Amino acid sequence: MLTFAIPKGSLLKDSIVLLQAIGLDFSAFLDESNRLLQITEPQGIAKAMLVRAQDVSVYVEYGEAHLGIVGEDVLREKMPRVARLLDLRFGACRMSIAVPQDSPHRSALSLLPHSRIASKSVRITQDYFASLDLPVEIIPLYGSVELAPITGMADAIVDLVSTGRTLRDNGLIEIEVLFHSTARLIAHPLSYRLDREQLSYYVDRVRDVLPQ
Amino acid sequence: MLTFAIPKGSLLKDSIVLLQAIGLDFSAFLDESNRLLQITEPQGIAKAMLVRAQDVSVYVEYGEAHLGIVGEDVLREKMPRVARLLDLRFGACRMSIAVPQDSPHRSALSLLPHSRIASKSVRITQDYFASLDLPVEIIPLYGSVELAPITGMADAIVDLVSTGRTLRDNGLIEIEVLFHSTARLIAHPLSYRLDREQLSYYVDRVRDVLPQ
Repeated sequence: MLTFAIPKGSLLKDSIVLLQAIGLDFSAFLDESNRLLQITEPQGIAKAMLVRAQDVSVYVEYGEAHLGIVGEDVLREKMPRVARLLDLRFGACRMSIAVPQDSPHRSALSLLPHSRIASKSVRITQDYFASLDLPVEIIPLYGSVELAPITGMADAIVDLVSTGRTLRDNGLIEIEVLFHSTARLIAHPLSYRLDREQLSYYVDRVRDVLPQ
Repeated sequence: MLTFAIPKGSLLKDSIVLLQAIGLDFSAFLDESNRLLQITEPQGIAKAMLVRAQDVSVYVEYGEAHLGIVGEDVLREKMPRVARLLDLRFGACRMSIAVPQDSPHRSALSLLPHSRIASKSVRITQDYFASLDLPVEIIPLYGSVELAPITGMADAIVDLVSTGRTLRDNGLIEIEVLFHSTARLIAHPLSYRLDREQLSYYVDRVRDVLPQ
Protein backbone atom coordinates (compact mmCIF):
# COMPACT_ATOMS: atom_id res chain seq x y z
CA MET A 1 0.00 0.00 0.00
CA LEU A 2 1.20 3.50 -0.90
CA THR A 3 2.48 5.19 2.26
CA PHE A 4 2.94 8.86 3.09
CA ALA A 5 4.81 10.55 5.93
CA ILE A 6 2.95 13.75 6.81
CA PRO A 7 4.41 16.45 9.08
CA LYS A 8 2.73 17.67 12.25
CA GLY A 9 2.67 21.41 12.73
CA SER A 10 2.59 24.26 10.28
CA LEU A 11 2.64 22.16 7.07
CA LEU A 12 -0.09 19.74 8.17
CA LYS A 13 -3.19 21.50 6.89
CA ASP A 14 -1.85 22.31 3.42
CA SER A 15 -0.49 18.76 3.12
CA ILE A 16 -3.94 17.29 3.80
CA VAL A 17 -5.56 19.69 1.30
CA LEU A 18 -3.01 18.73 -1.36
CA LEU A 19 -3.59 15.00 -0.89
CA GLN A 20 -7.36 15.55 -0.95
CA ALA A 21 -6.91 17.27 -4.32
CA ILE A 22 -5.43 14.05 -5.73
CA GLY A 23 -8.22 11.97 -4.21
CA LEU A 24 -6.57 10.77 -1.00
CA ASP A 25 -8.46 11.83 2.10
CA PHE A 26 -6.44 11.97 5.32
CA SER A 27 -8.50 14.76 6.86
CA ALA A 28 -9.01 12.65 9.98
CA PHE A 29 -5.58 13.94 11.05
CA LEU A 30 -7.08 17.44 11.29
CA ASP A 31 -9.66 16.28 13.81
CA GLU A 32 -8.55 17.62 17.20
CA SER A 33 -9.77 14.49 18.95
CA ASN A 34 -7.77 12.16 16.69
CA ARG A 35 -5.03 10.33 18.58
CA LEU A 36 -4.04 7.88 15.85
CA LEU A 37 -0.64 8.40 14.29
CA GLN A 38 -1.37 6.11 11.35
CA ILE A 39 -4.50 6.03 9.21
CA THR A 40 -5.66 4.50 5.93
CA GLU A 41 -7.79 6.69 3.68
CA PRO A 42 -11.40 5.61 3.01
CA GLN A 43 -10.68 3.91 -0.37
CA GLY A 44 -7.97 1.73 1.18
CA ILE A 45 -5.39 2.77 -1.45
CA ALA A 46 -2.99 4.68 0.75
CA LYS A 47 -1.82 4.97 4.33
CA ALA A 48 -0.32 7.97 6.11
CA MET A 49 1.80 8.38 9.21
CA LEU A 50 1.66 11.62 11.17
CA VAL A 51 5.17 12.42 12.41
CA ARG A 52 7.29 15.36 13.53
CA ALA A 53 8.40 17.64 10.71
CA GLN A 54 12.03 16.68 11.41
CA ASP A 55 11.20 12.97 11.30
CA VAL A 56 9.47 12.86 7.88
CA SER A 57 12.76 12.43 6.03
CA VAL A 58 13.82 9.63 8.39
CA TYR A 59 10.70 7.59 7.59
CA VAL A 60 11.25 8.18 3.87
CA GLU A 61 14.98 7.47 4.02
CA TYR A 62 14.32 4.09 5.66
CA GLY A 63 11.59 3.30 3.13
CA GLU A 64 8.84 3.13 5.76
CA ALA A 65 7.07 5.84 3.78
CA HIS A 66 7.23 5.93 -0.03
CA LEU A 67 6.51 9.65 -0.15
CA GLY A 68 6.83 12.47 2.35
CA ILE A 69 6.16 16.18 2.68
CA VAL A 70 8.89 18.19 4.36
CA GLY A 71 10.24 21.73 4.54
CA GLU A 72 13.29 22.67 2.47
CA ASP A 73 14.86 23.85 5.76
CA VAL A 74 14.71 20.32 7.19
CA LEU A 75 16.29 18.90 4.03
CA ARG A 76 19.14 21.41 4.25
CA GLU A 77 19.72 20.72 7.92
CA LYS A 78 19.55 16.93 7.83
CA MET A 79 20.69 16.21 4.24
CA PRO A 80 18.82 12.90 4.14
CA ARG A 81 19.34 10.42 1.31
CA VAL A 82 15.95 10.89 -0.32
CA ALA A 83 14.76 11.75 -3.84
CA ARG A 84 13.60 15.34 -4.08
CA LEU A 85 10.63 15.45 -6.44
CA LEU A 86 8.57 18.64 -6.32
CA ASP A 87 8.39 22.11 -4.82
CA LEU A 88 4.87 22.15 -3.36
CA ARG A 89 4.86 25.99 -3.09
CA PHE A 90 3.15 26.16 0.32
CA GLY A 91 4.70 26.68 3.76
CA ALA A 92 6.79 29.61 2.53
CA CYS A 93 9.26 30.95 5.07
CA ARG A 94 12.90 31.96 5.19
CA MET A 95 15.96 31.06 7.21
CA SER A 96 17.25 34.35 8.53
CA ILE A 97 19.78 35.94 10.83
CA ALA A 98 18.24 38.28 13.39
CA VAL A 99 19.80 40.55 16.01
CA PRO A 100 18.41 42.79 18.78
CA GLN A 101 17.11 46.13 17.45
CA ASP A 102 19.87 47.99 19.32
CA SER A 103 22.67 45.83 17.90
CA PRO A 104 25.18 47.79 15.81
CA HIS A 105 25.33 44.93 13.27
CA ARG A 106 23.27 45.15 10.12
CA SER A 107 24.72 42.31 8.02
CA ALA A 108 26.18 38.87 8.63
CA LEU A 109 29.66 40.02 7.69
CA SER A 110 29.57 42.87 10.19
CA LEU A 111 29.14 40.40 13.09
CA LEU A 112 32.33 40.11 15.13
CA PRO A 113 34.45 36.96 14.92
CA HIS A 114 33.52 34.54 17.73
CA SER A 115 30.05 36.02 18.07
CA ARG A 116 27.59 33.68 19.73
CA ILE A 117 24.83 32.51 17.40
CA ALA A 118 21.87 30.57 18.85
CA SER A 119 20.01 28.25 16.50
CA LYS A 120 18.00 25.07 16.14
CA SER A 121 19.66 24.54 12.75
CA VAL A 122 23.25 23.85 13.70
CA ARG A 123 24.48 22.50 10.38
CA ILE A 124 22.93 25.31 8.34
CA THR A 125 24.42 27.91 10.67
CA GLN A 126 27.83 26.26 10.64
CA ASP A 127 27.94 25.96 6.85
CA TYR A 128 26.77 29.52 6.32
CA PHE A 129 29.36 31.16 8.56
CA ALA A 130 32.06 28.84 7.24
CA SER A 131 31.21 30.08 3.72
CA LEU A 132 31.80 33.64 4.98
CA ASP A 133 35.06 32.60 6.64
CA LEU A 134 33.70 34.07 9.86
CA PRO A 135 34.37 31.93 12.93
CA VAL A 136 31.39 31.94 15.30
CA GLU A 137 30.34 30.02 18.39
CA ILE A 138 27.07 28.20 17.82
CA ILE A 139 24.71 27.66 20.77
CA PRO A 140 22.40 24.76 19.87
CA LEU A 141 18.86 25.21 21.24
CA TYR A 142 15.64 23.20 20.90
CA GLY A 143 13.10 26.00 21.13
CA SER A 144 12.36 29.67 21.81
CA VAL A 145 15.57 30.72 20.08
CA GLU A 146 14.40 34.35 20.22
CA LEU A 147 14.98 34.32 24.00
CA ALA A 148 18.74 33.88 23.60
CA PRO A 149 19.60 37.44 22.45
CA ILE A 150 17.14 38.97 24.94
CA THR A 151 18.97 37.41 27.87
CA GLY A 152 22.30 38.30 26.31
CA MET A 153 23.37 34.69 25.82
CA ALA A 154 23.67 35.13 22.05
CA ASP A 155 24.57 38.05 19.79
CA ALA A 156 22.37 36.82 16.98
CA ILE A 157 20.11 33.94 16.00
CA VAL A 158 19.60 31.89 12.87
CA ASP A 159 15.96 30.89 12.74
CA LEU A 160 12.99 30.23 10.48
CA VAL A 161 10.85 33.31 9.92
CA SER A 162 7.41 33.30 8.34
CA THR A 163 5.41 36.41 9.25
CA GLY A 164 8.17 37.98 11.33
CA ARG A 165 5.81 38.50 14.26
CA THR A 166 7.86 36.49 16.77
CA LEU A 167 10.93 38.56 15.92
CA ARG A 168 9.05 41.86 16.30
CA ASP A 169 7.44 40.75 19.58
CA ASN A 170 10.90 40.07 20.94
CA GLY A 171 12.58 43.25 19.71
CA LEU A 172 14.65 41.49 17.05
CA ILE A 173 15.27 42.48 13.44
CA GLU A 174 16.22 40.40 10.44
CA ILE A 175 19.56 41.38 8.94
CA GLU A 176 20.18 38.59 6.42
CA VAL A 177 18.20 35.91 4.59
CA LEU A 178 20.13 32.63 4.18
CA PHE A 179 17.54 31.01 1.91
CA HIS A 180 13.83 30.77 1.21
CA SER A 181 12.04 27.56 2.12
CA THR A 182 8.82 25.87 0.98
CA ALA A 183 7.35 22.39 1.41
CA ARG A 184 8.81 19.66 -0.81
CA LEU A 185 7.61 16.26 -1.95
CA ILE A 186 10.28 13.64 -1.33
CA ALA A 187 10.44 9.92 -2.11
CA HIS A 188 12.33 6.84 -1.04
CA PRO A 189 14.85 6.61 -3.90
CA LEU A 190 14.63 2.87 -4.55
CA SER A 191 10.84 2.75 -4.33
CA TYR A 192 10.66 5.65 -6.75
CA ARG A 193 13.08 4.06 -9.21
CA LEU A 194 11.17 0.78 -9.14
CA ASP A 195 7.86 2.69 -9.34
CA ARG A 196 6.44 0.72 -6.44
CA GLU A 197 2.72 1.17 -5.73
CA GLN A 198 2.39 3.33 -8.86
CA LEU A 199 4.41 6.07 -7.20
CA SER A 200 5.01 8.00 -10.42
CA TYR A 201 1.28 8.10 -11.15
CA TYR A 202 0.59 9.82 -7.83
CA VAL A 203 3.56 12.15 -8.21
CA ASP A 204 2.22 13.20 -11.63
CA ARG A 205 -1.18 13.86 -10.10
CA VAL A 206 0.40 16.06 -7.42
CA ARG A 207 2.27 17.97 -10.16
CA ASP A 208 -1.00 18.46 -12.03
CA VAL A 209 -2.83 20.02 -9.09
CA LEU A 210 -0.04 22.43 -8.11
CA PRO A 211 -0.75 26.09 -8.87
CA GLN A 212 0.94 27.02 -12.17
CA MET B 1 19.59 39.36 40.29
CA LEU B 2 19.32 35.63 40.97
CA THR B 3 18.22 33.90 37.78
CA PHE B 4 16.56 30.52 37.22
CA ALA B 5 16.04 28.48 34.08
CA ILE B 6 12.76 26.60 34.41
CA PRO B 7 11.72 23.80 32.05
CA LYS B 8 8.50 23.83 30.04
CA GLY B 9 6.54 20.61 30.02
CA SER B 10 6.21 17.87 32.57
CA LEU B 11 8.56 19.35 35.22
CA LEU B 12 7.07 22.85 35.11
CA LYS B 13 4.37 22.58 37.76
CA ASP B 14 6.52 20.88 40.40
CA SER B 15 9.32 23.37 39.72
CA ILE B 16 7.00 26.32 40.40
CA VAL B 17 5.69 24.67 43.60
CA LEU B 18 9.24 24.05 44.83
CA LEU B 19 10.30 27.66 44.24
CA GLN B 20 7.12 28.91 45.93
CA ALA B 21 8.11 26.82 48.97
CA ILE B 22 11.32 28.84 49.26
CA GLY B 23 9.45 32.12 48.85
CA LEU B 24 9.94 32.76 45.12
CA ASP B 25 6.67 33.02 43.24
CA PHE B 26 6.85 32.31 39.51
CA SER B 27 3.29 30.96 39.31
CA ALA B 28 2.55 33.40 36.46
CA PHE B 29 4.21 30.79 34.21
CA LEU B 30 1.32 28.42 35.01
CA ASP B 31 -1.22 30.91 33.70
CA GLU B 32 -2.41 29.57 30.32
CA SER B 33 -2.66 33.09 28.91
CA ASN B 34 0.94 33.99 29.83
CA ARG B 35 3.12 34.54 26.78
CA LEU B 36 6.17 35.95 28.57
CA LEU B 37 9.25 33.76 28.60
CA GLN B 38 10.96 35.80 31.30
CA ILE B 39 9.44 37.09 34.54
CA THR B 40 10.63 38.60 37.82
CA GLU B 41 8.89 37.39 40.98
CA PRO B 42 6.84 39.94 42.99
CA GLN B 43 9.60 40.73 45.54
CA GLY B 44 12.07 41.61 42.79
CA ILE B 45 14.72 39.22 44.17
CA ALA B 46 14.80 36.68 41.38
CA LYS B 47 14.08 36.28 37.69
CA ALA B 48 13.14 33.14 35.79
CA MET B 49 13.31 32.12 32.15
CA LEU B 50 10.90 29.54 30.80
CA VAL B 51 12.76 27.35 28.30
CA ARG B 52 12.59 23.90 26.68
CA ALA B 53 13.61 21.09 29.02
CA GLN B 54 16.60 20.35 26.75
CA ASP B 55 17.69 24.00 26.81
CA VAL B 56 17.83 24.52 30.60
CA SER B 57 21.36 23.19 30.84
CA VAL B 58 22.49 25.44 27.96
CA TYR B 59 21.32 28.58 29.78
CA VAL B 60 23.04 27.41 32.96
CA GLU B 61 26.22 26.36 31.18
CA TYR B 62 26.57 29.82 29.61
CA GLY B 63 25.87 31.50 32.95
CA GLU B 64 22.66 33.17 31.73
CA ALA B 65 20.88 31.38 34.55
CA HIS B 66 22.56 30.81 37.92
CA LEU B 67 20.35 27.85 38.73
CA GLY B 68 18.25 25.47 36.65
CA ILE B 69 15.90 22.55 37.03
CA VAL B 70 16.41 19.71 34.61
CA GLY B 71 15.76 15.98 34.25
CA GLU B 72 18.60 13.55 34.92
CA ASP B 73 17.90 12.13 31.44
CA VAL B 74 18.81 15.47 29.81
CA LEU B 75 22.03 15.65 31.85
CA ARG B 76 23.02 12.16 30.74
CA GLU B 77 22.24 12.90 27.09
CA LYS B 78 23.88 16.32 26.85
CA MET B 79 26.61 16.04 29.52
CA PRO B 80 26.70 19.81 30.05
CA ARG B 81 29.44 21.45 32.11
CA VAL B 82 27.24 22.42 35.06
CA ALA B 83 27.40 21.85 38.81
CA ARG B 84 24.95 19.16 39.91
CA LEU B 85 23.58 20.16 43.29
CA LEU B 86 20.45 18.31 44.39
CA ASP B 87 18.09 15.50 43.51
CA LEU B 88 14.69 17.23 43.68
CA ARG B 89 12.82 13.87 43.85
CA PHE B 90 9.97 14.86 41.50
CA GLY B 91 9.51 14.04 37.83
CA ALA B 92 10.32 10.38 38.36
CA CYS B 93 10.58 8.35 35.18
CA ARG B 94 12.91 5.81 33.64
CA MET B 95 14.87 5.42 30.43
CA SER B 96 13.84 2.05 29.05
CA ILE B 97 14.11 -0.26 26.09
CA ALA B 98 10.76 -1.35 24.68
CA VAL B 99 9.85 -3.79 21.92
CA PRO B 100 6.57 -4.83 20.25
CA GLN B 101 4.59 -7.33 22.35
CA ASP B 102 5.10 -10.03 19.71
CA SER B 103 8.88 -9.55 19.58
CA PRO B 104 10.83 -12.66 20.62
CA HIS B 105 13.32 -10.47 22.53
CA ARG B 106 12.93 -10.06 26.26
CA SER B 107 16.23 -8.45 27.23
CA ALA B 108 18.70 -6.00 25.69
CA LEU B 109 21.29 -8.72 25.22
CA SER B 110 18.87 -10.91 23.31
CA LEU B 111 18.45 -8.24 20.60
CA LEU B 112 20.23 -9.22 17.39
CA PRO B 113 23.41 -7.43 16.33
CA HIS B 114 22.61 -4.55 13.96
CA SER B 115 19.08 -4.24 15.26
CA ARG B 116 17.54 -0.86 14.54
CA ILE B 117 16.87 1.18 17.67
CA ALA B 118 14.82 4.39 17.41
CA SER B 119 15.41 7.04 20.07
CA LYS B 120 15.44 10.73 20.88
CA SER B 121 18.41 10.07 23.18
CA VAL B 122 21.15 9.13 20.74
CA ARG B 123 24.11 9.41 23.07
CA ILE B 124 22.48 7.43 25.87
CA THR B 125 21.48 4.69 23.42
CA GLN B 126 24.91 4.59 21.83
CA ASP B 127 26.73 4.40 25.17
CA TYR B 128 24.40 1.74 26.53
CA PHE B 129 24.75 -0.66 23.60
CA ALA B 130 28.50 0.02 23.39
CA SER B 131 28.72 -1.05 27.05
CA LEU B 132 27.03 -4.32 26.07
CA ASP B 133 29.37 -4.74 23.09
CA LEU B 134 26.27 -5.07 20.92
CA PRO B 135 26.48 -3.14 17.63
CA VAL B 136 23.15 -1.54 16.75
CA GLU B 137 21.91 0.97 14.21
CA ILE B 138 20.41 4.01 15.91
CA ILE B 139 17.57 5.88 14.18
CA PRO B 140 17.46 9.39 15.64
CA LEU B 141 13.91 10.77 15.96
CA TYR B 142 12.43 13.97 17.41
CA GLY B 143 9.09 12.68 18.57
CA SER B 144 6.54 9.84 18.66
CA VAL B 145 9.31 7.27 18.96
CA GLU B 146 6.67 4.62 19.72
CA LEU B 147 5.55 4.79 16.08
CA ALA B 148 8.88 3.42 14.80
CA PRO B 149 8.41 -0.24 15.87
CA ILE B 150 4.73 -0.20 14.82
CA THR B 151 5.64 0.65 11.24
CA GLY B 152 8.50 -1.82 11.32
CA MET B 153 11.20 0.83 10.94
CA ALA B 154 12.81 -0.12 14.26
CA ASP B 155 13.14 -3.36 16.22
CA ALA B 156 13.15 -1.55 19.55
CA ILE B 157 13.09 1.92 21.07
CA VAL B 158 14.96 3.62 23.90
CA ASP B 159 12.62 6.16 25.44
CA LEU B 160 11.55 7.85 28.64
CA VAL B 161 8.70 6.04 30.40
CA SER B 162 6.66 7.47 33.26
CA THR B 163 3.29 5.73 33.61
CA GLY B 164 3.86 3.31 30.74
CA ARG B 165 0.55 4.22 29.15
CA THR B 166 2.01 5.35 25.81
CA LEU B 167 3.84 2.02 25.52
CA ARG B 168 0.70 0.01 26.31
CA ASP B 169 -1.44 2.08 23.93
CA ASN B 170 1.01 1.23 21.16
CA GLY B 171 1.41 -2.46 21.90
CA LEU B 172 4.94 -2.15 23.25
CA ILE B 173 6.49 -3.69 26.35
CA GLU B 174 9.45 -2.61 28.43
CA ILE B 175 12.24 -5.16 28.47
CA GLU B 176 15.07 -3.27 30.17
CA VAL B 177 15.50 -0.18 32.38
CA LEU B 178 18.69 1.78 31.59
CA PHE B 179 18.36 4.17 34.55
CA HIS B 180 15.85 6.01 36.70
CA SER B 181 15.53 9.74 36.30
CA THR B 182 14.27 12.59 38.50
CA ALA B 183 14.52 16.38 38.35
CA ARG B 184 17.85 17.89 39.44
CA LEU B 185 18.94 21.32 40.62
CA ILE B 186 21.97 22.47 38.65
CA ALA B 187 24.13 25.61 38.88
CA HIS B 188 26.57 27.57 36.78
CA PRO B 189 29.85 26.31 38.27
CA LEU B 190 31.67 29.64 38.56
CA SER B 191 28.66 31.51 39.94
CA TYR B 192 28.20 28.78 42.51
CA ARG B 193 31.87 28.79 43.55
CA LEU B 194 31.83 32.57 43.93
CA ASP B 195 28.46 32.38 45.70
CA ARG B 196 27.02 35.08 43.47
CA GLU B 197 23.61 36.47 44.44
CA GLN B 198 23.68 34.36 47.65
CA LEU B 199 23.30 31.22 45.59
CA SER B 200 24.26 28.89 48.44
CA TYR B 201 21.59 30.41 50.69
CA TYR B 202 18.86 29.58 48.16
CA VAL B 203 20.29 26.12 47.50
CA ASP B 204 20.19 25.44 51.27
CA ARG B 205 16.59 26.56 51.39
CA VAL B 206 15.68 24.19 48.55
CA ARG B 207 17.43 21.36 50.44
CA ASP B 208 15.42 22.21 53.56
CA VAL B 209 12.04 22.00 51.86
CA LEU B 210 12.71 18.71 50.06
CA PRO B 211 10.80 15.70 51.43
CA GLN B 212 13.10 13.76 53.78
